Amino acid sequence: MGNRERTGVWIAGALGDIATTVRVGAAALGRGLAPHTGLVSALPPMDRLDLLPFDALVFGGCDIHPGNPVEAAEAVCRRSRTYSPDLLDAVREDLMASAADYSVDPDMAWDVSRPQPGLPPLEMLVERVRDRLRRFAANHGLGRVVVVNLISVETLPAEIDGHRDLEAFEALLAADRKDQVTPSMVYAYAALREGCPHVNFTPCAGASIPALQGLAEQVGVPHCGNDGKTGETLLKTALAPMFAARHLRVMSWEGFNLLGNEDGRSLADPGRRAGKLRNKGRVLEEVLGYAPHGDVAIHYVPSLGDWKTAWDLVHFAGFLDVPMTLQLTWQGSDSILAAPLVLDLVRFADFAARRGESGLMPHLASFFKDPMGTREHALWSQFQALLRYTERHLRAAG
Amino acid sequence: MGNRERTGVWIAGALGDIATTVRVGAAALGRGLAPHTGLVSALPPMDRLDLLPFDALVFGGCDIHPGNPVEAAEAVCRRSRTYSPDLLDAVREDLMASAADYSVDPDMAWDVSRPQPGLPPLEMLVERVRDRLRRFAANHGLGRVVVVNLISVETLPAEIDGHRDLEAFEALLAADRKDQVTPSMVYAYAALREGCPHVNFTPCAGASIPALQGLAEQVGVPHCGNDGKTGETLLKTALAPMFAARHLRVMSWEGFNLLGNEDGRSLADPGRRAGKLRNKGRVLEEVLGYAPHGDVAIHYVPSLGDWKTAWDLVHFAGFLDVPMTLQLTWQGSDSILAAPLVLDLVRFADFAARRGESGLMPHLASFFKDPMGTREHALWSQFQALLRYTERHLRAAG
Amino acid sequence: MGNRERTGVWIAGALGDIATTVRVGAAALGRGLAPHTGLVSALPPMDRLDLLPFDALVFGGCDIHPGNPVEAAEAVCRRSRTYSPDLLDAVREDLMASAADYSVDPDMAWDVSRPQPGLPPLEMLVERVRDRLRRFAANHGLGRVVVVNLISVETLPAEIDGHRDLEAFEALLAADRKDQVTPSMVYAYAALREGCPHVNFTPCAGASIPALQGLAEQVGVPHCGNDGKTGETLLKTALAPMFAARHLRVMSWEGFNLLGNEDGRSLADPGRRAGKLRNKGRVLEEVLGYAPHGDVAIHYVPSLGDWKTAWDLVHFAGFLDVPMTLQLTWQGSDSILAAPLVLDLVRFADFAARRGESGLMPHLASFFKDPMGTREHALWSQFQALLRYTERHLRAAG
Amino acid sequence: MGNRERTGVWIAGALGDIATTVRVGAAALGRGLAPHTGLVSALPPMDRLDLLPFDALVFGGCDIHPGNPVEAAEAVCRRSRTYSPDLLDAVREDLMASAADYSVDPDMAWDVSRPQPGLPPLEMLVERVRDRLRRFAANHGLGRVVVVNLISVETLPAEIDGHRDLEAFEALLAADRKDQVTPSMVYAYAALREGCPHVNFTPCAGASIPALQGLAEQVGVPHCGNDGKTGETLLKTALAPMFAARHLRVMSWEGFNLLGNEDGRSLADPGRRAGKLRNKGRVLEEVLGYAPHGDVAIHYVPSLGDWKTAWDLVHFAGFLDVPMTLQLTWQGSDSILAAPLVLDLVRFADFAARRGESGLMPHLASFFKDPMGTREHALWSQFQALLRYTERHLRAAG
Repeated sequence: MGNRERTGVWIAGALGDIATTVRVGAAALGRGLAPHTGLVSALPPMDRLDLLPFDALVFGGCDIHPGNPVEAAEAVCRRSRTYSPDLLDAVREDLMASAADYSVDPDMAWDVSRPQPGLPPLEMLVERVRDRLRRFAANHGLGRVVVVNLISVETLPAEIDGHRDLEAFEALLAADRKDQVTPSMVYAYAALREGCPHVNFTPCAGASIPALQGLAEQVGVPHCGNDGKTGETLLKTALAPMFAARHLRVMSWEGFNLLGNEDGRSLADPGRRAGKLRNKGRVLEEVLGYAPHGDVAIHYVPSLGDWKTAWDLVHFAGFLDVPMTLQLTWQGSDSILAAPLVLDLVRFADFAARRGESGLMPHLASFFKDPMGTREHALWSQFQALLRYTERHLRAAG
Repeated sequence: MGNRERTGVWIAGALGDIATTVRVGAAALGRGLAPHTGLVSALPPMDRLDLLPFDALVFGGCDIHPGNPVEAAEAVCRRSRTYSPDLLDAVREDLMASAADYSVDPDMAWDVSRPQPGLPPLEMLVERVRDRLRRFAANHGLGRVVVVNLISVETLPAEIDGHRDLEAFEALLAADRKDQVTPSMVYAYAALREGCPHVNFTPCAGASIPALQGLAEQVGVPHCGNDGKTGETLLKTALAPMFAARHLRVMSWEGFNLLGNEDGRSLADPGRRAGKLRNKGRVLEEVLGYAPHGDVAIHYVPSLGDWKTAWDLVHFAGFLDVPMTLQLTWQGSDSILAAPLVLDLVRFADFAARRGESGLMPHLASFFKDPMGTREHALWSQFQALLRYTERHLRAAG
Repeated sequence: MGNRERTGVWIAGALGDIATTVRVGAAALGRGLAPHTGLVSALPPMDRLDLLPFDALVFGGCDIHPGNPVEAAEAVCRRSRTYSPDLLDAVREDLMASAADYSVDPDMAWDVSRPQPGLPPLEMLVERVRDRLRRFAANHGLGRVVVVNLISVETLPAEIDGHRDLEAFEALLAADRKDQVTPSMVYAYAALREGCPHVNFTPCAGASIPALQGLAEQVGVPHCGNDGKTGETLLKTALAPMFAARHLRVMSWEGFNLLGNEDGRSLADPGRRAGKLRNKGRVLEEVLGYAPHGDVAIHYVPSLGDWKTAWDLVHFAGFLDVPMTLQLTWQGSDSILAAPLVLDLVRFADFAARRGESGLMPHLASFFKDPMGTREHALWSQFQALLRYTERHLRAAG
Repeated sequence: MGNRERTGVWIAGALGDIATTVRVGAAALGRGLAPHTGLVSALPPMDRLDLLPFDALVFGGCDIHPGNPVEAAEAVCRRSRTYSPDLLDAVREDLMASAADYSVDPDMAWDVSRPQPGLPPLEMLVERVRDRLRRFAANHGLGRVVVVNLISVETLPAEIDGHRDLEAFEALLAADRKDQVTPSMVYAYAALREGCPHVNFTPCAGASIPALQGLAEQVGVPHCGNDGKTGETLLKTALAPMFAARHLRVMSWEGFNLLGNEDGRSLADPGRRAGKLRNKGRVLEEVLGYAPHGDVAIHYVPSLGDWKTAWDLVHFAGFLDVPMTLQLTWQGSDSILAAPLVLDLVRFADFAARRGESGLMPHLASFFKDPMGTREHALWSQFQALLRYTERHLRAAG
């Protein structure tokens, strides 16, 4: 590495399965022990951008559950049938070295819909996060820290005026309104106030209220989200354009999602599920130009663990209104699907920040179920935007 | 219609299920009895091009089996559970009116791999087709006749020099080499020699040998094909780009096709199946940049009739080389999927011919499994080419 | 028929899709126009029992919606893509002839969970049904009338003492407690009081409260139900024994049901869905001896119409606790699956009644999701019970 | 173990994936480290029979490929994602201890359809196997050795007279007719001649020619097979009876099998595949009483490794001949499905031998695709035979 600059990756929800897979994967990539499979940033022509190498990433973060990255990685390895024990052994030392940069904070878990007495006031919680970010950067002499939100789904507060502009939002903080301010908002606000690029990979739409979008512009850092597009919605945004381009009329698109991980447990709560479903529902209408019948069911099936399974039935009308069907079954490890996208987003956010770009990063729309700054949902169009962005920078770098 | 110009649609294989559904559907559209579902040419912005209205199409053709369009339409209605008896009743008169323009010619069914004695020489067969085209145009005062190939799959001859240029090909005709010249070549040659735009919707790649491509350029008419993209391959060209864009490594893409119609029966013959599979196999390699393992099985399952069912298993590696799977089941009526695309191609070929365009029509690539004149297989990119073509013409028409 | 005795089939819910398909199918069978496919009673050795021929059945019934059997049959034919218009034409006359035996009674549609003022008192409603049954039998000189319940799912009242014995139940009738007595109970009570065998094909468990079971024994007529086993549960009771016999441990059995018919619309109501799900849930525990994780989702998908689609995921552990999966997709017409079972049950109930058998008919368990009088759910064991019953009677008839 | 008697398990194909999983599983069971999941012999009431405990089994065998049980177990663990490295570590010592009882013999791999010069004569090969069995028993003081055939699929010779009776078969051995005698026949003949119970778990039908069935009776030992029923056929024999019991007419039952293991590689050879498909095809006809259309495709898909995937489409006609469909997708580890059945068969064969039973063991039919000694294929009826056998022995032991 020599005197090469390093960038921090500070994760909220740092001991969850996705964050743990990000950590193990980054270490394996840094040591040349893993292929680039799954990494969009490693595809041509993106691989010719001056993106951070994986061994220049320094990891830290906090979680509401106790633990450390080594224990978390062992637990995932044992439970999930994803990466091998051998791979874990090969990076165990790297994980141990960063244990000191992981903190536990059970206070960051309130739900806006239920009163939880005894928590510190919001402004103190904001300050706590900012302090952690400052110390993390200082300890490692980091030029930049990208903050990534990977916490569990949270209940979305009603849309209220206090979310519209920064002044009103800061009033909510000052008034300690935990019924209107979510943990995600606190992380995002703290990150942006510290000048850290912010990536919201969760369905917690609170992180992207207008007040925080405005703050990102004002502070001049990248701010992107929401909700990593890893499975059923990825398929929808690849396939719905096919139906549109063939003038096939989608009558119903029913989805059935089975999840066995922490995410699935959270989504068993109707309040939390609402936000997730909102993101999933909007996609078809935007791509097709009309809203077919379409319910999405989410069941928590513990035996599946990290291996989510989704079945979709597309019932569509063809020529002379004859009904036909397509069925899809997607079986994938949630963490393995998500982790490389998180690394991609960190690299792209760092790249943008280095070039002084700020705001909602619509060229990263293909990574999200509900991308900020664009209403384009068709996967292919989203991906073209990334290619165009890349080519523009490659030309500029000449 | 008044003195409005009409265009002929002359179909080789005119009494097959697809041709029959084309005929019924065009009549229903012409009478305003069917919606535009399934018609790409009716999507914006293509619907603003000066394309032929459906009631300006006059149908004729020939088939190797005896019959007439009314009987064929009744048989399809009874067997296929697609269009309703009521719809058939509403257009029966139109079909009857065109019965005289359908001829039966059992001679056009030889197989290059097996000697069939007693057929007329090739040059006579060519002349017979040309004569039918001339009479069809003359009888109805047609300004243009588009020839569409919808015959059953035929055995592909070996690639030989005589297919490379026109002079050599005409020598094969003169020498009556039925071991090297297929019925499709005869139809295509006759059509092009008569100055008719030619659409090859079948997998019979013989229709697109270099000699005939050259003839289309020389004569100055559109010539497009091969092999309508209606099911499994349509899905592949929509989904393979998704795997590519996510850097997911497709290890195996296995396909299982069940067909119960005449097409299925023909494909039970290994010689005929070869051409079909060649088209299907090439797609993944072109889109992904590498060739995953992938066998495609085709079974003839009579009970399914026109309702083809395809099951695909995509076995792919994600981050850290973890294997995951996607399964697809596509259940659709072959005729209903194909018929509107045939009508689209007729309209686009007529449009191009009216504007003096000739040759391989790469803007129509999205309609074909193995499009001539381009190696682009990704559905979305192919569709963009059609949009660009359309917008160019709309601007020109301004 | 000569002086051969005929039996009446009086259906509650007589204009629904299942009842209509029963009617059309029985007429077609009576005229020798339909094969015996789907009829268990036509399988050897049951076909050697002295069961009623189909042309000895006389149909009547009532419905809460206006209409007549001919209109209903036309509507099903148009919407459902099941039987052909030709078949309908061939039996239209038979349906017309029985129109006078169909009555409309919108009063029989209250919901125990919501007060509906203005209805006649329960005892009057009971008398109204009994009067209809008497007149139906008298008009046609019927020796016996089998009453079949095919109404929409109703909300189940709480389990209360008044359902336990006949005296208490009759007190509920006298007190006009429409919050505790359902329409199904009224139909069943009226039928049994008239000495009519009673078949409950619906999930309305009210028809089988202990008070009514006791009445059936007392009156000495067959009384069987509940909830025809036509799709997902049929598969479960065929497949769960396989897992048990192989000592494979079912961890989760998740079901996703998509229905587009009236039944689906009713089940969208959570109160009504509860009863249905209760029947479905019990099956696995009874067959496996333990309760795996297993949620069943039911979505109303109007575009599917009568064609219900169910997807099941079975996640099971094998040797060394290795997880494996089975997926099932069942696509069938609800009416076509149910109708022959209704005819079978009518024939078996009539047969039993003729021989003086009464009560819960456990030999008919294979027809029901929640069979009365037995806890046996494994399909094969249930079917053996029918075979043993049949062989016993054949020997007796010897 | 004290002076408790022990039984040998001598496996032909001892280093294959199934045999290796048998070995690891038996060791884990012997040490109390694995649950009884997957073991039919551990289900009530079979668990009350006096079956051998797992720690009374002593393993040996031979293979055509070099290796030893420890290396084989490590390779399976690495490749297959089935048992964990921890479990392997816990039994490694047991596997090492038996390494001396595994021999390598590349001579036992000829194919009857192709001449392979230079092999020792058949009688010498027979004697070699017999000698190994004698030394294995002597070295460990074994009272009994059960021989299990787990070799790769072999090409079936034509049915010839020399397979009909023992004298003629011994003449083929004497004449060294390797075009008519397969390796499986040599293993089976040697085992039976040594008085060893013989279990043929492979599709190699040669092991069960009449000559060898006769020898088993004559020698007085159990002899059972063929072809372990672990996946698609298991489902067929559970589900086809459901269609039969409902009088649903199966029109087509199409199967698509994807295999990535050694078995899959062997089945890519058309000669070898023939025997396998024969077993699979017969099942439906026997259960249904008629033969529906039904092709079974087998593709070798290396990326799947031991995880075989089967997709079945059942196209069936219901009432009024309306077509409907069932689809099945089975995803399981071949070794994990097969290994416990092998252990069950060893225990049941040993149990029968101890009681002086001999011949074809029809009570074990449920374990085989093509059971010897019975034409019963319905899973449930087969399983009842095992229950009756068990109960008879329990009463006798009573």
